[in-house]
Amino acid sequence: MSGRFTRPLDIAGGRVEMTHGGGGRAMVQLVAELFQAELGNPILAQGNDAALLPPAAGRLVMSTDAYVVSPLFFPGGDIGSMAVHGTINDIAMSGAQPLYLSAAFILEEGLPLADLARIVASMARASREAGVPIVTGDTKVVERGKADGLFITTTGVGVVADGLMIAGDAIRSGDVILLSGSIGDHGIAILSQREGLSFSVPIESDSAAVHGLVADMVAAVPEIRCLRDPTRGGLSATLNELATQSGVGLVIEESAIPILPVVRGACEILGLDPLGIANEGKLIAFCPPEHAEALLAVMRAHPLGRDAAVIGVAIEDPRRFVRLRTTLGTERVIDWMFGAQLPRIC
Amino acid sequence: MSGRFTRPLDIAGGRVEMTHGGGGRAMVQLVAELFQAELGNPILAQGNDAALLPPAAGRLVMSTDAYVVSPLFFPGGDIGSMAVHGTINDIAMSGAQPLYLSAAFILEEGLPLADLARIVASMARASREAGVPIVTGDTKVVERGKADGLFITTTGVGVVADGLMIAGDAIRSGDVILLSGSIGDHGIAILSQREGLSFSVPIESDSAAVHGLVADMVAAVPEIRCLRDPTRGGLSATLNELATQSGVGLVIEESAIPILPVVRGACEILGLDPLGIANEGKLIAFCPPEHAEALLAVMRAHPLGRDAAVIGVAIEDPRRFVRLRTTLGTERVIDWMFGAQLPRIC
Repeated sequence: MSGRFTRPLDIAGGRVEMTHGGGGRAMVQLVAELFQAELGNPILAQGNDAALLPPAAGRLVMSTDAYVVSPLFFPGGDIGSMAVHGTINDIAMSGAQPLYLSAAFILEEGLPLADLARIVASMARASREAGVPIVTGDTKVVERGKADGLFITTTGVGVVADGLMIAGDAIRSGDVILLSGSIGDHGIAILSQREGLSFSVPIESDSAAVHGLVADMVAAVPEIRCLRDPTRGGLSATLNELATQSGVGLVIEESAIPILPVVRGACEILGLDPLGIANEGKLIAFCPPEHAEALLAVMRAHPLGRDAAVIGVAIEDPRRFVRLRTTLGTERVIDWMFGAQLPRIC
Repeated sequence: MSGRFTRPLDIAGGRVEMTHGGGGRAMVQLVAELFQAELGNPILAQGNDAALLPPAAGRLVMSTDAYVVSPLFFPGGDIGSMAVHGTINDIAMSGAQPLYLSAAFILEEGLPLADLARIVASMARASREAGVPIVTGDTKVVERGKADGLFITTTGVGVVADGLMIAGDAIRSGDVILLSGSIGDHGIAILSQREGLSFSVPIESDSAAVHGLVADMVAAVPEIRCLRDPTRGGLSATLNELATQSGVGLVIEESAIPILPVVRGACEILGLDPLGIANEGKLIAFCPPEHAEALLAVMRAHPLGRDAAVIGVAIEDPRRFVRLRTTLGTERVIDWMFGAQLPRIC
């Protein structure tokens, strides 16, 4: 349709204008020359209000997340790649195969089109690498000062193989707790970018789509009880949420939790608890003890689970406490924060 | 989980705080006492990152829309009911049965919880009345001045019956164009609320879920070629988009287009073109001429299609023009606006 426009969109020097959200030709041009050009696939190209998809065999899953991370660009990713990874991961945490994504953009008037193009290109790359296409979308524009650059909401749809029953309320006393890798990287990367901090070793977000890791895990150990990605609120909030949902206590070993030395150092300097910091490419898994060894081996065989470790065990506890055995041999209850250590982390 | 909170959420007097988006206990309390309390259904209550849904037989459809309408409340609806209706309608425009919705909220710090509760209650009502549950959601909070009260993104999933092939590129020369009712009500209702205008007769938004009307239409006339709801950009933008997609010309009769007298009057006073104004409960349908009479009868038999009318016809035209035959007997090309007459209408 871009044949209707006398001049192509000025992606290098232009900015988002209110007309780009008006439903008229300016919006069609933005969609054609920026979104379709980057994200293009045969389904998105249908150009109808809804994307028409083939039938999907099996139970469906659906998940949505709004992304408001600030700043928009950070070491290891940006709001675009994160909006793809995060929603793929939420789908994968039910053991499902993610099939499709939708993306809705809220743009602030004045946003440089170059920033938008860079973010959309990053989404396109993340979507291609994950093999999960963005099949439909929407663009709205609000006046300057009524948003913060841009917000993206992605929604995912997937299918779960028969026989899997992976859920937050399925954990049983005796289950082993596994963690796929080091924690805290994402939150500290965002914070360092936001505050202009620099460390001896650069800290990058771990933002990644873990559905491939999950596919290997459920293929090898379909008895997995629960998967969850420790994003907002970190490991502490996630473990407390799961203890509550399943009605169990959880005991974790501090010495078993992988934390990069530079992240540990940054947390010490900044007075932050690494257990409360968001991750974007990690998962926690619960399985019956007889399958733990096999599951750990499968996780370690995948690039995103190389540093996987057994970190604890579920026990009977009517109080549903999450307890940490420290490296000093003491034990403390890991409470659940009221808010968050860091706002707008995702 | 609300047993963990010493005090219930102060919905009457409280405000959204940054902690409500932090992934900790404050967020869990907001979700439990406000979102779950209003929207509650067995799927939403699963409480996992993704909603687990039964298998769906048939081709899937998926659609997403961000809602940024200002003001949040307007005659005939609010951002909440609109976010439900609008996405259901986008799903229905493929002839599909809408099955599930997700909802992602971006809240501005300081938003009165009473406003949020009223909006979520309105979503719950719209969802119940439409029979399409909200099965999963997300809540983020941004600092004061970084959003505008709240934005909602809803995504819908549905299934299309075998044999239907309804799309924007399916219109053929000779097809008859039908419109389900009066146009311009939504845009003028929003504008009057925003600008504090009052008219002799109150103008209400037409915001409604039209999937029931569509179900009747496709059951009676599966030969329908195309359905589209004339939202942003109104009838002009929608018809121009479809003429382009299908490679046809469209000719419509001004005298055949239903417009409420009060809306026509308001447009005259305000210098607005009713053909360019957004609607939220109307649809345009295209069908082969031999089915037009039957389709019109089915539409008029439904409460949301009582005022349905045949408004024009598709013709061969390599220029893909949309032309209006005026009540004066003249003819003019209906161009497609560059932006929109009214910003933030949906």
